[in-house]
Amino acid sequence: MAEDNRKSRVLIIGGTGYIGKFVVEASAKAGHPTFVLVRESTIADPVKAKLVENFKNLGVKLITGDLYDRESLVKAIKEVDVVISTVGQMQLADQSKIIDAIKEAGNVKRFFPSEFGLDVDRLNAVEPAKSALAIKAEIRRAIEREGIPYTYVSSNCFNGYFLPTLMQPGLTSPPTDKVIIPGDGHPKAIFNLEEDIGSYTIKAVDDPRTENKILYINPPNNTYSFNDLVALWEKKIGKPLEKLYVPEHQILRDIQEAPLPINVILALNHSIFVKGDETNFEIEPSFGVEASTLYPDVKYTTVDEYLSRFV
Amino acid sequence: MAEDNRKSRVLIIGGTGYIGKFVVEASAKAGHPTFVLVRESTIADPVKAKLVENFKNLGVKLITGDLYDRESLVKAIKEVDVVISTVGQMQLADQSKIIDAIKEAGNVKRFFPSEFGLDVDRLNAVEPAKSALAIKAEIRRAIEREGIPYTYVSSNCFNGYFLPTLMQPGLTSPPTDKVIIPGDGHPKAIFNLEEDIGSYTIKAVDDPRTENKILYINPPNNTYSFNDLVALWEKKIGKPLEKLYVPEHQILRDIQEAPLPINVILALNHSIFVKGDETNFEIEPSFGVEASTLYPDVKYTTVDEYLSRFV
Repeated sequence: MAEDNRKSRVLIIGGTGYIGKFVVEASAKAGHPTFVLVRESTIADPVKAKLVENFKNLGVKLITGDLYDRESLVKAIKEVDVVISTVGQMQLADQSKIIDAIKEAGNVKRFFPSEFGLDVDRLNAVEPAKSALAIKAEIRRAIEREGIPYTYVSSNCFNGYFLPTLMQPGLTSPPTDKVIIPGDGHPKAIFNLEEDIGSYTIKAVDDPRTENKILYINPPNNTYSFNDLVALWEKKIGKPLEKLYVPEHQILRDIQEAPLPINVILALNHSIFVKGDETNFEIEPSFGVEASTLYPDVKYTTVDEYLSRFV
Repeated sequence: MAEDNRKSRVLIIGGTGYIGKFVVEASAKAGHPTFVLVRESTIADPVKAKLVENFKNLGVKLITGDLYDRESLVKAIKEVDVVISTVGQMQLADQSKIIDAIKEAGNVKRFFPSEFGLDVDRLNAVEPAKSALAIKAEIRRAIEREGIPYTYVSSNCFNGYFLPTLMQPGLTSPPTDKVIIPGDGHPKAIFNLEEDIGSYTIKAVDDPRTENKILYINPPNNTYSFNDLVALWEKKIGKPLEKLYVPEHQILRDIQEAPLPINVILALNHSIFVKGDETNFEIEPSFGVEASTLYPDVKYTTVDEYLSRFV
């Protein structure tokens, strides 16, 4: 796609990861000169080759380098205006290296650290999720201390993680007869297609309204309580499910009793579906903006449409 | 069921957890006087009520108490001969409290700490699995330092975790067209039905051959390479799957790039299916015994039988 020189040049770090590839594609398709930091071994890899080939076809420029090679990082950053990090959980803390490199480079107009989940400043998560998510909050504070212009993308639940199984960890079959619902099933959660998360993120790149703000991706048609989601699924499969509600005190014990990695999944589900951490606060203009309101032209995939794939 | 006074009295701590309930049932059904340490709130809980009711019907005695209430713990331990811990990941380290209580009680003939997975002394796991699994090894060392007679149950993969999805984390559908295979698919892993793990564990309780040994549950008919498992599944569904092999260096990067909790799952799968950590060593008589050899009367469910449930 032809590049648009009025659009910021974007570097994605972690661009071959779970959410990163959707951000890369959205950036290129939106006409941003798009750069991806990749290790040499990634380019040579047969499995990632298809992904990288697709990037190239979209006009994406691969920059050889590494989060842990400061010189390559600073050099890559100097070629762009905006840096988007989509590194995974294990590298969240090492984003301090990106912050240092952005300071040294001195040219970055906006930094999107790796978020793409819950708003980590407004959480009621318990361990082991609590500490894992707290790393993102620490990176926020580091960015703010350094005065780097930022956008934090709070994209809530990835469709692909939650919807195909209706959040039934440890079950031995997809829910066609019974479903376990944490808490009372009333708190609302938000589910987004990964491609749409990419699109909204890229919309924010050159938008002054998103500077130093949290960009919440909260499309009204993708906001469902657990109960409403089960009702939608029941309608699709044409039969009612047996519903088993697990009270919060039991969930907290289940987290203690569960083996790895179920304990992690249960703790995330507790925050989202019992505490309602995706929707239990108002988005105030002082700290946040909502993506589907800012960008009504993005035709996002609704949960209703998405779930139809699994009938 | 009638109790057999020649059989050791067994206390299970964590008996309402994922694997604990199978151990409790196996103990009661085998005729051991069986005790479960439960919090008062657990007994009152509507969700756990069915489980607890089932325990009672099997003649299990509920002892009100708590891992964090030393007096109740020591009192419960004094009523039995053998202590089996099936606490979850979050409480593994706190098994030091059980060790202290066993020392104080002074009457325990055998302690089974919460293991029920990989042999944590013979691992090639990477982070974040490495640290999580290391806690079990630390508990082993503490038990050995105190000279408490032990059995470590190395039960390998829980069927319910691995087989229904054929280990496809983050996929949006069950594998009916393609399957992602870590590494070359050759290392062998071992899959066991949770009920069988309970049965073998209880068999070991009064068996001198399992004292101060690792009890490996490695039934020959449940030992499959990833490739063999896929071939078995293909035969069952009557169609070949597209196979995508992910080389190890790519898996190691995927672990870095993955969001929580997929990074944890990928790291466990790397240890099991790439490093072959369930089968890449010989069981030497000096440290281990194999359950299906010791107890040929246990009619375990084979992987072949189990997978038929999902066709």
